[in-house]
Amino acid sequence: MKANNMVIAQSGGPSMVINGSLVGAVLAARDKKLTGAKIGKIYGAVHGIQGILKGEYLDLRKVSVKKLEAIAKTPSSALGSCRMKPTAADCKAIFEEFKRLKVGYFFYIGGNDSADAARIVAEEAEKEGYPLVAYHIPKTIDNDLRSCDHTPGFGSAARFVASAIRGDDLDNRALGGVKIDVIMGRDAGFLTAASALARQRPDDGPHLIYLPEVPFSEEKFVKDINGAMKKFGRCVIAVSEGIRGKDGVAIGAKLADGETDSHGNVQMSGTGALGDALAKLVKAKAGIKRVRADTFGYLQRSFPGIQSETDLEEALNAGWAAVEAALTTTITKGTIGIQRVKGKKYGVEYIAMPVQNAAKYTRSVPKEYIAKNGCDVTPAFIDYAKPLVGELPPCEIF
Amino acid sequence: MKANNMVIAQSGGPSMVINGSLVGAVLAARDKKLTGAKIGKIYGAVHGIQGILKGEYLDLRKVSVKKLEAIAKTPSSALGSCRMKPTAADCKAIFEEFKRLKVGYFFYIGGNDSADAARIVAEEAEKEGYPLVAYHIPKTIDNDLRSCDHTPGFGSAARFVASAIRGDDLDNRALGGVKIDVIMGRDAGFLTAASALARQRPDDGPHLIYLPEVPFSEEKFVKDINGAMKKFGRCVIAVSEGIRGKDGVAIGAKLADGETDSHGNVQMSGTGALGDALAKLVKAKAGIKRVRADTFGYLQRSFPGIQSETDLEEALNAGWAAVEAALTTTITKGTIGIQRVKGKKYGVEYIAMPVQNAAKYTRSVPKEYIAKNGCDVTPAFIDYAKPLVGELPPCEIF
Repeated sequence: MKANNMVIAQSGGPSMVINGSLVGAVLAARDKKLTGAKIGKIYGAVHGIQGILKGEYLDLRKVSVKKLEAIAKTPSSALGSCRMKPTAADCKAIFEEFKRLKVGYFFYIGGNDSADAARIVAEEAEKEGYPLVAYHIPKTIDNDLRSCDHTPGFGSAARFVASAIRGDDLDNRALGGVKIDVIMGRDAGFLTAASALARQRPDDGPHLIYLPEVPFSEEKFVKDINGAMKKFGRCVIAVSEGIRGKDGVAIGAKLADGETDSHGNVQMSGTGALGDALAKLVKAKAGIKRVRADTFGYLQRSFPGIQSETDLEEALNAGWAAVEAALTTTITKGTIGIQRVKGKKYGVEYIAMPVQNAAKYTRSVPKEYIAKNGCDVTPAFIDYAKPLVGELPPCEIF
Repeated sequence: MKANNMVIAQSGGPSMVINGSLVGAVLAARDKKLTGAKIGKIYGAVHGIQGILKGEYLDLRKVSVKKLEAIAKTPSSALGSCRMKPTAADCKAIFEEFKRLKVGYFFYIGGNDSADAARIVAEEAEKEGYPLVAYHIPKTIDNDLRSCDHTPGFGSAARFVASAIRGDDLDNRALGGVKIDVIMGRDAGFLTAASALARQRPDDGPHLIYLPEVPFSEEKFVKDINGAMKKFGRCVIAVSEGIRGKDGVAIGAKLADGETDSHGNVQMSGTGALGDALAKLVKAKAGIKRVRADTFGYLQRSFPGIQSETDLEEALNAGWAAVEAALTTTITKGTIGIQRVKGKKYGVEYIAMPVQNAAKYTRSVPKEYIAKNGCDVTPAFIDYAKPLVGELPPCEIF
C-alpha cells in the first residue's frame, strides 16, 4: 500500500492570506467526499522543510474547523516559515523522515523560491525512488509567479499599499512638499504599481510611480519631480524597493549591508536606507525643502483586518485545488496555476501544472501595464488589479 | 453689533479624526437651536493661519451635511495645515483680515503648538483691542496635551500601531530574529506604549517597549534584547522616535539633518535613520543575524478605514463643544479639555478652560504607566488606553 500520510508546510515571506491556503488544503484533505479517505495523517511541518529535518510537526487533523477558520483570517504563516534551498543531502534526510512517517503527499506553500524547493524535493524523490506526490501552492505578495495571472497574497498586500497611499496622499495635500513611499517587490513592480489604485481624483497621488522594470535614472527622477511640483504643487511618489539602474544592480542593494539568504537574495526590506537616500537626493538636486520618505516594510504583508475578500477566497481555493489535483491528476510534481477566465465578470480557474512553471524564475510587470513616460501605470493595469483588491475606504475632500 | 462671522482652521500634523472636529464645529455653528443664529458666515481658512494671511477660505455654510459626514471619516486635514508660530506682525495682519470679514469667532484645531498659536492670536487681539472669542480644539496623535485625559487622534493612531504590531509580531513568529518598530511621538511615549495593546497571549510581542520618558541606554537595550531572545527565541521591539539618552538629547535628532519648524521642533518622522541605526547596533553588539527595522511613519496618522469609533465620536464632540463654549461661557481665550468621567463605564466630559492649559508644554507618560524594568507598560496603562482604541481584529495561532 502506498504511504498515504501528508506533510504540509509554509515557506518564504509570510502574507495576509498564506494561512488561507494552508486551511484550504487541510480542509480538502479532511474532506472524505473529495479524498475518499485516501489521505491519512496530516502533518503540519513547523518552519517549512526545517521542521521536517528536525521532526517538528503539528497534527492538523485534530484542529477544530472553527480554529482553522480563524487562522485563515490571520496574517503571517501560522506554521512558521523558513528560507532554505534544500541540498541533495537534505532531501535524503527528508525522505528518511517521510518513510518513517509513511508520507506520500507533500505540499509546500510559497513563492518562486519555495516552488523551487518543492521542485528539488520532488525531483530528488524520483531520483532516489521515493514514491511522492509533491505540490507547490502559490503565494507571494510580489505577484511574480509565471504560473499565475496573479498570486494569493498580492491582492491583500496591494490593498494595504493602495489604502496607505490614499491616506498618505491626503496627508501630503495638507502639508505639501515631496513624499516618497518605498514599497516591497524585489524583482517585480506589481505591488508598487498597485499604489495607482489609491487615486480617486485626477490630481490625487501617487503622482509618480517607479518600478524595477524601468531602469532608474536619478536625472529623470529629479526632472519628473520638478514637473509634478509644477503641475500639482506637491508630489507623492511610489518607489519599488527593487528599482535598479541601467547596470541592472538594485539601488537598495547597493545601500544594504549585503545580507543574503540561501537562494542568493539580498535583503532589501526591513531598512529605510533607500527612502532616505532618495529623500536626500531630492533635497539636494530638486531644492525642495520638505521631503519625507517612508518605507512601508513588513506591514504590507502582515497588517491584520484588511485582507481582500477575493484574495482570501482564492488562497483557500488554491490550497483546496492542490490537494484535489494531487489525488485526481497524473501530475506528481505539480503546482496550481491561477488563470483568469475571459469575459466581463471577474473569475479564475485553478489548473494543475508542472512545478517548473512556478519555480525559480519570476515574472515582471508586462510592458502594456507601464505608462510610456516610465513613471506611471496604464489603465490596463488598473483593470487588471482592481478586482483583486476590492473597493477601498472612500476619502472625501472639499 | 459684534462681528459674528467665524473662521476655523486646522494646524500641525494631520490625524485620522481631525476632520471630525472640523465637522463637529461646523455642524454646531450651523445649528440654530444651539447658536440662536448668532454665528453668521463660516470661513474655513486654507492651510491654517497662512490661509488667513493670504485670504484663502472655503464657505463652510454651503457644504452639504452628507459631504461633511464623509469628510469627518476621512483622514488628514481637509482644510490643509501649516506649522507656523504667528508673530505680533502676523497677528496685526490677521486682525485686519478679521475686521474686513467681520470675524468675531476663531477656532483653531491642533496640538500644543497650535494651541500656543491660538493663545498668541487671542492675547494679541486683547492687546490690540480687537474683540475676538478664540478657541483651540484639541488634536494630537501624541496624546500629550496637559488639558486632556487623552486627545482626539490618539485612539485611532494607537489603533493603527497596535494592529500593526499584532500583525508584525506574527510575522516575527514565522521567521524569527529581532524586529524593531519605530513609532511616532516626539516628546511623549503614549503611542509607543499603545503597542502593548497588540498582545493577546503571554508570549506575544511587543516584548520590549522604549519610551522617551525613560533615558535610553544602548547597553541596557542590548541586554534587554538578549534576555528576550533567551525567553521567547525571538524579539519584537516598539521604540519611540523620541527616545533620548541621559543627556536629554533625542537619539533620532542626532541622526537627522537638523531640519526644524518655526516652533523649534526637529524633524524626526519621515526617515528610517533611527530604526536602521538601532538595527545595526543589535547586529553588532547582540550578535543576532536576522534584525529588521521598520519605521511606521505617516501611516500612523493617515491610514484610512481604521479609525477608532470612540475617537471619531470624541473628535466630533470636541469640535461641537468648542462652538458651544464660545457662545455660552465667559471664556474668550479657551480650549476644550477632555476629562474622563470616573466610574465603571467609560465616558468623558468636555470642559471649556483657558487656552494656556493646552498651549506649548506637553504632558509625558505618567510614572504609573511605565513598568519598573523601564521597557514595558503597566496594566494601568492598558486599562487607560483600551477604551480609546476599541477591539482589534483577533488573530489566531496554533
